[in-house]
Parts: sequence; C-alpha cells; structure tokens
Amino acid sequence: MKTLILGGVRSGKSALAEQLAAGGALPVVVVATARMPTDADDEMARRIAHHRARRPAAWVTVEEPLAVAAALAQHARPDVCVVVECLTLWLSNVLLERPLDARREIENLAAQVAQTPGELLLVSNEVGQGIMPDNALARRFADLSGHLHRELAARCERVLLCVAGLPQVLKGNRDAALA
Amino acid sequence: MKTLILGGVRSGKSALAEQLAAGGALPVVVVATARMPTDADDEMARRIAHHRARRPAAWVTVEEPLAVAAALAQHARPDVCVVVECLTLWLSNVLLERPLDARREIENLAAQVAQTPGELLLVSNEVGQGIMPDNALARRFADLSGHLHRELAARCERVLLCVAGLPQVLKGNRDAALA
Amino acid sequence: MKTLILGGVRSGKSALAEQLAAGGALPVVVVATARMPTDADDEMARRIAHHRARRPAAWVTVEEPLAVAAALAQHARPDVCVVVECLTLWLSNVLLERPLDARREIENLAAQVAQTPGELLLVSNEVGQGIMPDNALARRFADLSGHLHRELAARCERVLLCVAGLPQVLKGNRDAALA
Repeated sequence: MKTLILGGVRSGKSALAEQLAAGGALPVVVVATARMPTDADDEMARRIAHHRARRPAAWVTVEEPLAVAAALAQHARPDVCVVVECLTLWLSNVLLERPLDARREIENLAAQVAQTPGELLLVSNEVGQGIMPDNALARRFADLSGHLHRELAARCERVLLCVAGLPQVLKGNRDAALA
Repeated sequence: MKTLILGGVRSGKSALAEQLAAGGALPVVVVATARMPTDADDEMARRIAHHRARRPAAWVTVEEPLAVAAALAQHARPDVCVVVECLTLWLSNVLLERPLDARREIENLAAQVAQTPGELLLVSNEVGQGIMPDNALARRFADLSGHLHRELAARCERVLLCVAGLPQVLKGNRDAALA
Repeated sequence: MKTLILGGVRSGKSALAEQLAAGGALPVVVVATARMPTDADDEMARRIAHHRARRPAAWVTVEEPLAVAAALAQHARPDVCVVVECLTLWLSNVLLERPLDARREIENLAAQVAQTPGELLLVSNEVGQGIMPDNALARRFADLSGHLHRELAARCERVLLCVAGLPQVLKGNRDAALA
C-alpha cells in the first residue's frame, strides 16, 4: 500500500511513518532527503541525528537529496517497505538546484510512485495554510508543494494528516488501525 | 444549497467548486474577484488565464473585485449556480481599498449570503494556521479572514476543507457524494 | 475531562472553550496568559478587553503569563473547570523570558496537566501548517509549539481542532455533543 503522510511542523508525521514501517513485517529502506551539513553543530545536523537515532539499526538509510524517483526505482520491491523523509526538503532542494525543472521533477516523482511496488510511506509538510510570505520564491514553493501533494495523494491508497501527533485519515479506510 | 470551500494554497478548492458546479444541472455564473493585471506576463495573469481555460465555455464570468455582495444580489436566482472565486482575494482588495470598512463589508457579504437563493459555492483560502508574520497588516488580514470564514460557515449548509485535493466535510452530510 | 482545543487565528477556539465551560455545572477559573499592555489603545489590549467582556461575571480570571503549571496546581480541583487561554501566548512569553528553559517548561506543564483533576480546557493556536518564516526564532517557536501540542494531546482525553468556527474531533468521542 502507498501512504502519503502530511502534517505541520513537529506534528508527528515522521514518527508515524516510522511506527507504520516498524509495525510491518518487511525490511525497511529509508530514503532521506536532508543533506548533512558540514557544520555538525548546525540546527539541521541535530535534526538529522535525532531522526537517525530513532530508527531501528536494521533499517537501511539511503541519502538522496534530489534523485528520489531514481532511488524508488532502485530500492522499492514487492517485499520491501520504503520510507521517504521528507518530500518538503526534496522540493526545496529541487527548487534551489533545478528551479526550471521543478514541475517536471514533480511529474516524474508522481509517475514513479504510481508504478512503485511494495509498501511506500511518503512524508511531507503541509505548508499552504498560513499567510503567504511576501516573496515570490516562497509563493512558488507553496504552489509547487500544493501541486506535489495533490499529485501524490491521487496516486496513494491512503492519505493521513497529523495534527498534534494525532493522524487523521483524509483518504482510505477510516476504521483501519494505525500501527 | 450554500457551500463554503476552504483550503490551503493549491489544495484543489477551485477545482472542487468547479466540479460541483459542473455536476449540477443549473447554469453557472462565476464571480471572479481577481483583477486582471495590465502586464499579461505577470504571475497573477497566468493564474487567471489558467482558471479561465478550465471553465466550460457556457459559463458566464463576472469580474467583481470588490462589490461581491452586489454581484450576488444581481446574479443569484433559484435556478442559477453562482461560484465565487475567491474570497481571499476579495478580502485583500477590500483591505487595500477600503481598510476602515473591512468589518462592515464582511457583515454585508454574510447578510447577502444568508438571503441568497439557488446554489452558491464560495471559495476561500485557509490562511490562519501558520506562524503569524511580524507585520500588523498581515495580522489584521488573518484576523479578518478568520472572522469572514466563521460568519460564512454559520450561514452555509455545507463547509468543506480541501487538503491535498481531498475534500473533508467540516459541516453537512459526511456521506454525501462530492461530485 | 481534559480537552485541548486547537485552531488557527480567529477560528473560534476561545469561544468554543468558553461555551464548553459555560455548558458545565462547575465554577470556572480562567487562567489568562496575555499580559495587559500599558497602552490601552494597543491591539492586544483590545483583544484582551474583547475576551473579558464575553465571559460571565461569575467567572474568576487569573492573569498568569508564565507560571501556568503553578496556576493549575493552585486552582484546579475536582469540582472546578479551569480554562487556559492561550498556550501560544504562554509559549511566546516563555521563549522571550526563559529561552533556554522552554523545553523543560513544556515538560513541566505536560506533567502538571497529567495530574490535574476536574475539568480542564486548554486553548492553543495551530501555527505549523504555513510556510516557515526565514528566521531562527520563528522556526524554534513552531518546533516548540508542535512539541507542546503533541505532549498535551497525549495527556488529554479529547482534542478538538476549530476551522471556520466548526470544531472537528481529532481525539475522543466523535459523536458527543459539543456544548
């Protein structure tokens, strides 16, 4: 089954993805989109370390800031559970490095997700429900993020939204147990 | 029936409104609140063109950046479906042009909605669930937007929230089919 | 019962908390975290006055911008209903005055909530679903706010999210009447 997990900042979406992955019987591959900063004291370095420390030792972590579709093609199998954390960082990486290709990258990823076998857990931040900042890049990011989420939600059997650590079922069986 | 459709940026709220309008048997009037910019290459011009291209040719589009209540009074009929896209732009226009009257304009619109016959689909952005920007105008906008949504939600039989293209029923029959 | 009430700006969360408190039979203590500004024309002063004017005269209001856990320990009883408005302001006060202790303050509050008797209604803003502002303090605030909400949601029997004045049940009995 393919699951898209959305949520705000620190809403419990990564913890939920990892809980769902751990609750299944399949081996787990984590596709991590965060770039490890060179300065290990950095805020982002602490976040990455925090996320890593939480994951079971048997899980394989693949760092892939940009080529997430290729990573899915390489690692997804009918008997593997792939967790992608998180697509907001991926989209931000895409916008910084390939700004003109962002829309095509989203289509590519959505097409790859559609044909991905096995268990797939995609984690992304909801960023579109606040006041829009007064700069064109942030508006473009919010637009693309909304587009990405719609494309992925249409191709996933289940969509969950975390608020205060509580997953709400936006699509799929509302009565199924969540890990 | 009167329906308020809320959602974040690119969450599918306009597409849902147009789908619901197209799914009914009534002729459709779209009250469009966006001002067409003079520079046709502009970001907003592209958005407006994108929205227009999507709508059936038989629909009538009325451009009304400010006097939306008057447009409802003029165009709404028991045998017409009126779509208003979108009230966030309307509120922004009101704040720019009639800042001291914003609250009264909201009351006027809510009163007009209460007595509007026929099918009515009101589209607006949820903007209040992010970090508040550090400027008084943005805070006032978020305040007024929250006030507007509460006033309209109280006068509509159905309120939907779009997330990732998936409409959630906040008010009304949760089991009714959405177009 | 302990209830956490979340929502965006002007989403009806305080009105709901007061409605739930008024609908019960218990005497009500409001723990108000807003500091009254010295300038009475100020935006915040108007908000505070607006909130106060809405509350029944029999309710006791305790102003406590920082020591909310202590206020709970002092005022909560099995036969009292305590309303805390709002924890977003409290967290903001903590970050300004005790920035290094913010995490510990959150743990303290959550521990106090866990052992609080009687009726408890906690009001807080959802702030994590917009574009993150480009400054470290705002990001830290959003992080801590998400952490706070998860800690509190885990210790409350009921969690509600207000959108456009409409409470959605995130945790607890979805069929129970809301005041």
